[in-house]
Amino acid sequence: MKKITLYDTTLRDGAQTEGVSYSLHDKIMIAQRLDDFGIDFIEGGWPFSNPKDQELFAHFKKHSLKKAKLVPFGSTAHPSRPASRDKNLQSLIDAGTEYVIIFGKTWDLHVKDVLKIGLEQNVRIIYESVKFLVKKGKRVFYDAEHFFDGYKANPGYALKTVKAALDAGAELLVLCDTNGGTLPWEVREVCEQLKLSSGISRFGIHCHNDLGLAAANSLMCVGSGCVHIQGTMNGYGERCGNTDLVTVIGVLQQKMGWQAVRPKKLETLTAVSHFVSEISNMAHRDNHPFVGRSAFAHKGGVHIDAVLKKPAAYEHVEPSTVGNKRRFLVSELAGKSTLVNKAKELEFDLDKKSPKAKKMHTLIQELEREGYQFETAEASFKLLMQKSFKKFRKFFDLLGFRVIVEKREDNRLLSEATVKLRIKKELELTVAEGDGPVNALDNALRKALLKFYPSLEEAHLTDFKVRVLNAKAGTAAKVRVLIESQDAEESWVTIGVSENIIEASWAALVDSIEYKLMKDSGK
Amino acid sequence: MKKITLYDTTLRDGAQTEGVSYSLHDKIMIAQRLDDFGIDFIEGGWPFSNPKDQELFAHFKKHSLKKAKLVPFGSTAHPSRPASRDKNLQSLIDAGTEYVIIFGKTWDLHVKDVLKIGLEQNVRIIYESVKFLVKKGKRVFYDAEHFFDGYKANPGYALKTVKAALDAGAELLVLCDTNGGTLPWEVREVCEQLKLSSGISRFGIHCHNDLGLAAANSLMCVGSGCVHIQGTMNGYGERCGNTDLVTVIGVLQQKMGWQAVRPKKLETLTAVSHFVSEISNMAHRDNHPFVGRSAFAHKGGVHIDAVLKKPAAYEHVEPSTVGNKRRFLVSELAGKSTLVNKAKELEFDLDKKSPKAKKMHTLIQELEREGYQFETAEASFKLLMQKSFKKFRKFFDLLGFRVIVEKREDNRLLSEATVKLRIKKELELTVAEGDGPVNALDNALRKALLKFYPSLEEAHLTDFKVRVLNAKAGTAAKVRVLIESQDAEESWVTIGVSENIIEASWAALVDSIEYKLMKDSGK
Repeated sequence: MKKITLYDTTLRDGAQTEGVSYSLHDKIMIAQRLDDFGIDFIEGGWPFSNPKDQELFAHFKKHSLKKAKLVPFGSTAHPSRPASRDKNLQSLIDAGTEYVIIFGKTWDLHVKDVLKIGLEQNVRIIYESVKFLVKKGKRVFYDAEHFFDGYKANPGYALKTVKAALDAGAELLVLCDTNGGTLPWEVREVCEQLKLSSGISRFGIHCHNDLGLAAANSLMCVGSGCVHIQGTMNGYGERCGNTDLVTVIGVLQQKMGWQAVRPKKLETLTAVSHFVSEISNMAHRDNHPFVGRSAFAHKGGVHIDAVLKKPAAYEHVEPSTVGNKRRFLVSELAGKSTLVNKAKELEFDLDKKSPKAKKMHTLIQELEREGYQFETAEASFKLLMQKSFKKFRKFFDLLGFRVIVEKREDNRLLSEATVKLRIKKELELTVAEGDGPVNALDNALRKALLKFYPSLEEAHLTDFKVRVLNAKAGTAAKVRVLIESQDAEESWVTIGVSENIIEASWAALVDSIEYKLMKDSGK
Repeated sequence: MKKITLYDTTLRDGAQTEGVSYSLHDKIMIAQRLDDFGIDFIEGGWPFSNPKDQELFAHFKKHSLKKAKLVPFGSTAHPSRPASRDKNLQSLIDAGTEYVIIFGKTWDLHVKDVLKIGLEQNVRIIYESVKFLVKKGKRVFYDAEHFFDGYKANPGYALKTVKAALDAGAELLVLCDTNGGTLPWEVREVCEQLKLSSGISRFGIHCHNDLGLAAANSLMCVGSGCVHIQGTMNGYGERCGNTDLVTVIGVLQQKMGWQAVRPKKLETLTAVSHFVSEISNMAHRDNHPFVGRSAFAHKGGVHIDAVLKKPAAYEHVEPSTVGNKRRFLVSELAGKSTLVNKAKELEFDLDKKSPKAKKMHTLIQELEREGYQFETAEASFKLLMQKSFKKFRKFFDLLGFRVIVEKREDNRLLSEATVKLRIKKELELTVAEGDGPVNALDNALRKALLKFYPSLEEAHLTDFKVRVLNAKAGTAAKVRVLIESQDAEESWVTIGVSENIIEASWAALVDSIEYKLMKDSGK
């Protein structure tokens, strides 16, 4: 298998995602996981612009990674200083790594309107910055910022800038589509021209996803000179994000015959993707190629029947090769065979003709008539199966709850919940406040349970959806609440249905907690 | 501008998304919005496999769309029946539309292992099914299911199947990448070969996103024969979804010089994308190309500085051309013209340079930061304008409310709400029970108000939606409640935002009632 190198910038470009903010500890955990997974280069941060990133490099000086190379990011020297006295370049040296990466301006528009310096001066700065780092013993990657836009606007100048970097000793040129506005065939054409006009036949690529084409653009030039792909886990990044390495790894290895990570490690792709989403505190995308929970989920009856006969009928790849699972969505369109297959998937042996299968089928139909929908709420479905197969263990009994939401004339709002539980024969009466009634209930429930089941600390709620079923009934309508929870290993969805939104939320909350406890008790 | 036709299958393939379930009313609203937006063809559903879809076609027989063609979906005839007695084909005729679409098998694996019939028989079925529909006066599109996989496996046979459809009178052949496992250069190569070997130089394309490449694949063959792109709004669909028409429209029109919708309509791209996500009850993706909240959001200081000097420095396109906004994540600086235009639309004369416009603009920005979104909740926006223009009349003052939801050991559930209002100088303290806390509040509020404002009897709530804004906070997350109400004349949507679902519902309820009362008082 031909090998291509991967360069991950989750810790630098990924940290620019709206809503993402990594602590030093988060960054260390992500770097270690990516190292273990087999990523070749990990961009750790921009030590000059973000002093917190210096601590990361200091940490890995002492506790080095197993195999991956950690790389600090920076820019060419400031126009007002010689490279040898540039603090930004110095910070790269101080990081103490074998490799460093710097970006420079390729697009004349940027040189003129943003840097506001002469075109020749920019070329000189690039040359001197790279040269300085090489002299200091560093192996240098050079990010040609806005390479494609620059090449379109002024190809001669763009080439001049990248040649300056290579002449100064940069080990690899990385072509960046910084604004993410380039089309796949343009990427390929520019790469071909680069080879013809300047002999540069070996380069890396760094794309942004503003047209939803970053993965395609990155893959278009593999095999015609691209030996190094930059991107982030799950495609995190500013605006519309960067090239999604998770997707790119799947495609390279499963469809194109290139090796990105060791084949055995590919089976952890789904887990790695979840791990990073968890640390990043971002909900994992259900329809994420290869790794999403819906990626191999079949809903249409025609599809389910065909996949049962022949998985390749509606699956482009075997889900287990990327650590994912085939799922048949239990929906009203489906009959008893779906139920039996679903049971099998969850490792319950249900004979289609047995009275138990008939009973379960009737139960599910009734629940669906009431508004339950198990295609999403698989965790609740699993609990239902466990209960029916007498494999469920009761962790607590609910004796009652009360929620009060009150707004007084002083405009202050109070949400208070009381729960009464029996846990391991002890009676617990707990009260908690919260930001709203469901949060108050969640708080009271956890407060009561945590001392008995400390592993609940690891799990938290990541999404909360409410769907009105019979909308015409207005506020008296039945509502379906779906709660998504996750821990470091997986995410799961539970459901509650009631005319009362509090009761529906309560049911979904209890299922979420019971699922976590069952899982941890090894069932 | 060269024109390319768009075929939307949100209502059929999009409805297969895990977690999506459209009511008839939802489908009608989406179809109307897509019609208005300028989508050429709208696949309404599969009437044979889903009887609920028949109602949709019945509805549009009476209330036809303005310009878009509604298309029913079905399959070739069942092997056991002649086309003339096939109920599935008959259901397409019964839909009463000008166009119909059917899919047939192209991949020999499917013919042998799924249909389990002879290869020649399949070709005959395709021919006869299309022929039958054409004879009945229908214009027929033919979806060649698994075209790319079929062509790779057995090109001769694949061509035979599609030629049968064309010979029988199909107006357009649509190449489907049903499993979503095809690479962009493969798509282009197969299209070129198709032209060379069989003279088919005009076709449509239908891709799935299992490799994250559906948009790229769809765009690769535009200009070399593809005249029709199928996809869904926001890329909804089974597994990893379908080609995202929102992204494709942006790229075609902004980067490739093709016209997908009228240029003026392109400015509503963001609004249409949000509208469909709202009806689908799916969270809108922040990093969605062109239309996501973060699509033009700049976080890095270097980027913000440069964009202030020259937007093109880090923006591939001007955000307003697709109805989106530039955002600086440190300080929001969005444009005032939208507000002025919206005000004009509601017959308020707001001078862009006036202090009032500035004040309103600041207020709306603040509310949007808190999670309000007035795109959907126009009634709440109108109330805001009325208040600002001192055209609002206060019908009542809220002095306080209390909601209690209680579940006791007897398992009975109680929801009770108390409201304290001042109405026309009278103090009203009212209590009511309800099916859930919001219904109890609604009941208490109406009970108090009805004797003063009897016209409230005409209005009722028709929909109630809850969206979690910062999902990561779990049950402590901020929620946005949208309430749709209607009377005999119109329907209107109001909004409330709070960490407390009861308070958010209360705000939307109060707005709904105030809107009705303002309307009836002739303002």
